[in-house]
Amino acid sequence: MNGVGEDQIVFEIAVVVPKRNLKEENEGYDCVEVLVNEFRNVGFVVERVIGLSDEFIKLAAPLETLGRAAAKLHMKKPTRIGIDLQFEWEEVEAFVRQPDGSLFSWCERFQCYHHLIYETVNKKNSCITLKFDGKEIQWEVGESLLRRLELEGIVRQVFPLHDETKRKKLLRNWALNCWDFTNQPIDDIYAYFGTKIAVYFAFLGMYTRWMIFPAAFGLILQLVDFGSLQLLVLPAFFISIVLWAVLFFQFWKRKNSALSARWHLNFSVSTSQGYKLLGREWGSLQSPMELTKNLGTDKTKEKEAFQKYEWFSYLKRFRNDAIIILSIICLQLPFELAYAHLYEVIKSDIVKFGLTAVYLLVIQYFTKIGGKISIRLIKYENNENTEYKADSLVYKVFGLYFMQSYIGVFYHALLHRNFMTLRQVLIQRLILSEVLENLLENSLPYLKYSYKKYRAVRNKKKREKGSTGKIQFTSRVEKEYLKPTYSASICEELEDGLFDDFLELALQFGMIMMFACAFPLAFAFSALNNIAEIRTDALKLLAMLKRPGPRAAATIGAWLNIFQFLILMSICTNSALLVWLYDQEGKWKIEPGLAAILVMEHVLLLIKFGFSRFVPEEPAWVRANRMKNATQAQDMCSKQLLRSISGGEKAFSGSIPRKTPDGLKKTVMQRATD
Amino acid sequence: MNGVGEDQIVFEIAVVVPKRNLKEENEGYDCVEVLVNEFRNVGFVVERVIGLSDEFIKLAAPLETLGRAAAKLHMKKPTRIGIDLQFEWEEVEAFVRQPDGSLFSWCERFQCYHHLIYETVNKKNSCITLKFDGKEIQWEVGESLLRRLELEGIVRQVFPLHDETKRKKLLRNWALNCWDFTNQPIDDIYAYFGTKIAVYFAFLGMYTRWMIFPAAFGLILQLVDFGSLQLLVLPAFFISIVLWAVLFFQFWKRKNSALSARWHLNFSVSTSQGYKLLGREWGSLQSPMELTKNLGTDKTKEKEAFQKYEWFSYLKRFRNDAIIILSIICLQLPFELAYAHLYEVIKSDIVKFGLTAVYLLVIQYFTKIGGKISIRLIKYENNENTEYKADSLVYKVFGLYFMQSYIGVFYHALLHRNFMTLRQVLIQRLILSEVLENLLENSLPYLKYSYKKYRAVRNKKKREKGSTGKIQFTSRVEKEYLKPTYSASICEELEDGLFDDFLELALQFGMIMMFACAFPLAFAFSALNNIAEIRTDALKLLAMLKRPGPRAAATIGAWLNIFQFLILMSICTNSALLVWLYDQEGKWKIEPGLAAILVMEHVLLLIKFGFSRFVPEEPAWVRANRMKNATQAQDMCSKQLLRSISGGEKAFSGSIPRKTPDGLKKTVMQRATD
Repeated sequence: MNGVGEDQIVFEIAVVVPKRNLKEENEGYDCVEVLVNEFRNVGFVVERVIGLSDEFIKLAAPLETLGRAAAKLHMKKPTRIGIDLQFEWEEVEAFVRQPDGSLFSWCERFQCYHHLIYETVNKKNSCITLKFDGKEIQWEVGESLLRRLELEGIVRQVFPLHDETKRKKLLRNWALNCWDFTNQPIDDIYAYFGTKIAVYFAFLGMYTRWMIFPAAFGLILQLVDFGSLQLLVLPAFFISIVLWAVLFFQFWKRKNSALSARWHLNFSVSTSQGYKLLGREWGSLQSPMELTKNLGTDKTKEKEAFQKYEWFSYLKRFRNDAIIILSIICLQLPFELAYAHLYEVIKSDIVKFGLTAVYLLVIQYFTKIGGKISIRLIKYENNENTEYKADSLVYKVFGLYFMQSYIGVFYHALLHRNFMTLRQVLIQRLILSEVLENLLENSLPYLKYSYKKYRAVRNKKKREKGSTGKIQFTSRVEKEYLKPTYSASICEELEDGLFDDFLELALQFGMIMMFACAFPLAFAFSALNNIAEIRTDALKLLAMLKRPGPRAAATIGAWLNIFQFLILMSICTNSALLVWLYDQEGKWKIEPGLAAILVMEHVLLLIKFGFSRFVPEEPAWVRANRMKNATQAQDMCSKQLLRSISGGEKAFSGSIPRKTPDGLKKTVMQRATD
Repeated sequence: MNGVGEDQIVFEIAVVVPKRNLKEENEGYDCVEVLVNEFRNVGFVVERVIGLSDEFIKLAAPLETLGRAAAKLHMKKPTRIGIDLQFEWEEVEAFVRQPDGSLFSWCERFQCYHHLIYETVNKKNSCITLKFDGKEIQWEVGESLLRRLELEGIVRQVFPLHDETKRKKLLRNWALNCWDFTNQPIDDIYAYFGTKIAVYFAFLGMYTRWMIFPAAFGLILQLVDFGSLQLLVLPAFFISIVLWAVLFFQFWKRKNSALSARWHLNFSVSTSQGYKLLGREWGSLQSPMELTKNLGTDKTKEKEAFQKYEWFSYLKRFRNDAIIILSIICLQLPFELAYAHLYEVIKSDIVKFGLTAVYLLVIQYFTKIGGKISIRLIKYENNENTEYKADSLVYKVFGLYFMQSYIGVFYHALLHRNFMTLRQVLIQRLILSEVLENLLENSLPYLKYSYKKYRAVRNKKKREKGSTGKIQFTSRVEKEYLKPTYSASICEELEDGLFDDFLELALQFGMIMMFACAFPLAFAFSALNNIAEIRTDALKLLAMLKRPGPRAAATIGAWLNIFQFLILMSICTNSALLVWLYDQEGKWKIEPGLAAILVMEHVLLLIKFGFSRFVPEEPAWVRANRMKNATQAQDMCSKQLLRSISGGEKAFSGSIPRKTPDGLKKTVMQRATD
């Protein structure tokens, strides 16, 4: 009854080393041989594949190897009673299985693999001399062999491998199953790609499904001529799409926490993230006695240190954000306006085309530089973990893209004050960006892969001049090695390809929401685009790219706030659009109609902010489950805990009531006054 | 080294029964004697005081009695390692002491007292016949004697007693210590009055301290003549007070969570509240095996039930809120407008005076009726506990008061469009309401008390016609009995006097914030008023009223949201005021100045909502403490828990991986496809 992943050996990690001319005599000291032996010692199942120009060491870990690694890592895993406890291989039955029946999720497996492959340290007393094609390598005592070889450039890459059975199944059920529209096998995606990617697809699916309502409304607005009612229909459309967006994001939060509960990621109870502060890690290292001692003696000092640290980090983040915002306003805004203005002024089509080409080139550089600056700034922030860092990056870089995408449209809207021109600009942008981006997104990886394959074959041919006939790739692992990785266009350190996918969604959302009143049909366009997007993204991940490493975050993170911000912006811009619409003579006088729009805007803003107070982000059943679990765990070990606390207490202090110095003083003072 | 409350016996609860003509022969069956005996059996120290017309049974509980009651109640208390565990009398040393050195807080003691005095059940097999002044009372099997006597009207009241030593100390250090301005001994207030009242005074103190900045700014604006810069100074004032308010409430949240941490109320970890849903209480009753069984078999059903319940309760609350809002708009708004209009139209001062008198009378009824309707509506809501119910009441009733207080001012502002008239109205309202309310608040209880005392003495005189000379109250407990309780003017079921105190603060805050640009001096007025308010409220609680029963809530609850709403409103109203100021010719044309105000409004709204995302509500040290505690507790009992979970699991199912029916099906399907 064990899951599929545990019955048969699945190779999940590959290590790439160059092909060597092996001489039999010193095989024992060849570094690759030693590495493979070390892998075997750790407990891996190893398979070696010789490719065209590289050798691939495929690694698979039996369940027990993974379990021992997890126990060593003090990994917290959800148990049957709901709370997260440290994993112990002996008590494996206490832990909840994944939806697909396996014990470890892909993210946990990846962590274990990572721990295991870098654990190959030199345990002897002296350093060992290894050889590689004649070169000598010193393997120091206590050093990780893999890291040494990476530094020497011998290990070219370590990358996760696709699991062929699961991949094919997903291809069949998900990527090529176009008639499901927005339905996706989310649990299987979670099992194969990890949390963050599964959350992205769940979001995309729900977003597309909800999009059907405004798409239909927009279509009706386009097709039916309301005659004199036209001026009433647009505000109605505006109100309904704002309500739609507010509702959607509240329900998305609920769905997200339901998903977390289904995948047993109890983030609110578990402390797997974010309890590392002030550079020290709370946890298993300190015994309760030490801890209470700490609390007793330097509690106020500790508190001060924390407060200093906290405010200092806010200050740094504030400074960085200020730098980014100022540079966007002072450098990017004039540039974008200049382009928009020139484009408007120039008559000749050829010059326009040239201008656009130059512009496109320049903004490529702009965003690259912006990304680099952002990453450098983020390094000076005290973000608690990588996901926070990634969020910080997203906020900063989104500012750039926001200006790039919308300033031009705003300029056109302000200059012409004409709905028809604005609509044309919007259509151009939407169709161009969506079609172009989808094309690029899917063709670029394939082109890259083809080019790499071609080069590899050419190299091979050069080396083996004598051989004739076609050279074929026989091993799947080599093909995968040549596929591009799922990486962000802006930077590869903190974000992966999800950055680009989310960015596309967010820019699209902003475009259709902020100018909803000018172009209601846009919703229908994007609904269609998103239905296609689900399948093309799936195809890209499954067929065109290397398998991405899993990320731990269980929410869409910074993007949620960005979407919320876009809703806010859209309330303001649509109100402005409606004012223009009603005030076509340009009198700019506050008449009842315009006052009504202002009132409507404020009511919508209020609803936007009030709504989240009325419907909580966590469904009641998730909350009840969590509460139940926490209570139950405490009840189960309540007595034993109590005994150990009061026992430890006695052993430590001897006297009964221990207080902070403050409390003590107060009691003494009280006694004096009584 | 034990706290004061544990060394000496302090009588904390009094039970009031009428004086009887005791005949010696049937003393054994006299219900009061039986009650007193029962109290002694439970473990109380009892003192009986004969007053003028009543008899008072004063109760004090030794620490052990309280401890046993707490253990019986399965009370959760914070332990030295930070998490809350069920109290056990044997492990008393594991639990954290209060800041004043006692083991139980006033709130916990009150709970224990309540449990103990109503625990006096008839444990015999047959019902017992008791006598009271000749009347016979049947004490049924298993019935609480006190409740029976309450129903019969023999026990007139059960009320908490003041602790004379602590009361005098607080009077000296707090109520009469006027030169401390906003400093208060919050920990002592917490120990004496419980969480909610201490939080109120902490809020009032911090609010008043922060008020100094806008008060000074307002004074400067009033005193210095800026000449032509006047039109720039007012917007600056507007921006700075909005920022001030936003900052203040964010920092208040931080202070509140720091206070909770200091008083060891870990609400985020503990599940003392809110885990009772669907009518069943999770916890010690179900063994882990039963629970996992439940989870296994009817998880989806349970989820559905929860979802149904959740949405049903939202629907009910939404309906109730809609009823309240509609009736306020349809009934109260026209009434208030009619009054404001009539007041404006009528020339004669006498008629005006009469009108105001009638108006004041009518709104008394209005609010009473509104309160009653609200309470009836709330009964149909599924609020999880009394504090939620109280919050729901606060929201509903505040709507009434909001209309009452501000509609008149809005009307004047809109009608006259003149800053001077508006300012006059504001001064009238502010000074009148503040002076009148403070006077009423403090004189009414005293008058009530005096009247009751007078009546009691007169009754006594009537009965003992022969006696001459002055009759004096000898017992303190009788005096306390005659003092009024700390109750809300609107209803006594859900709220206590804090409702009125918070309402006063909120209405004042709304008045000074919403019309800040019209009358900057208001801040100085209210700062002065609040400094006085701290001391008069303290005096009222300590000297004029019965000791209030403690409430568990550790935040200011619904009022926080109301204050936030008032900030929002004030952004809008002040923008409108500024527009009027700039547009004195009444052209209503959007010129650069007006556009700038609109932009400013939107930026402020953005800041209002964005700020809370940047500075979290919980200080880092509180969070780190909580995290540390949770982790540590889990680590301490991790292994033992694991063993019991997997042991129970084996005993229950025999096979190793148990799944929900869904998961099982999926695995089977997977195998079929592989």
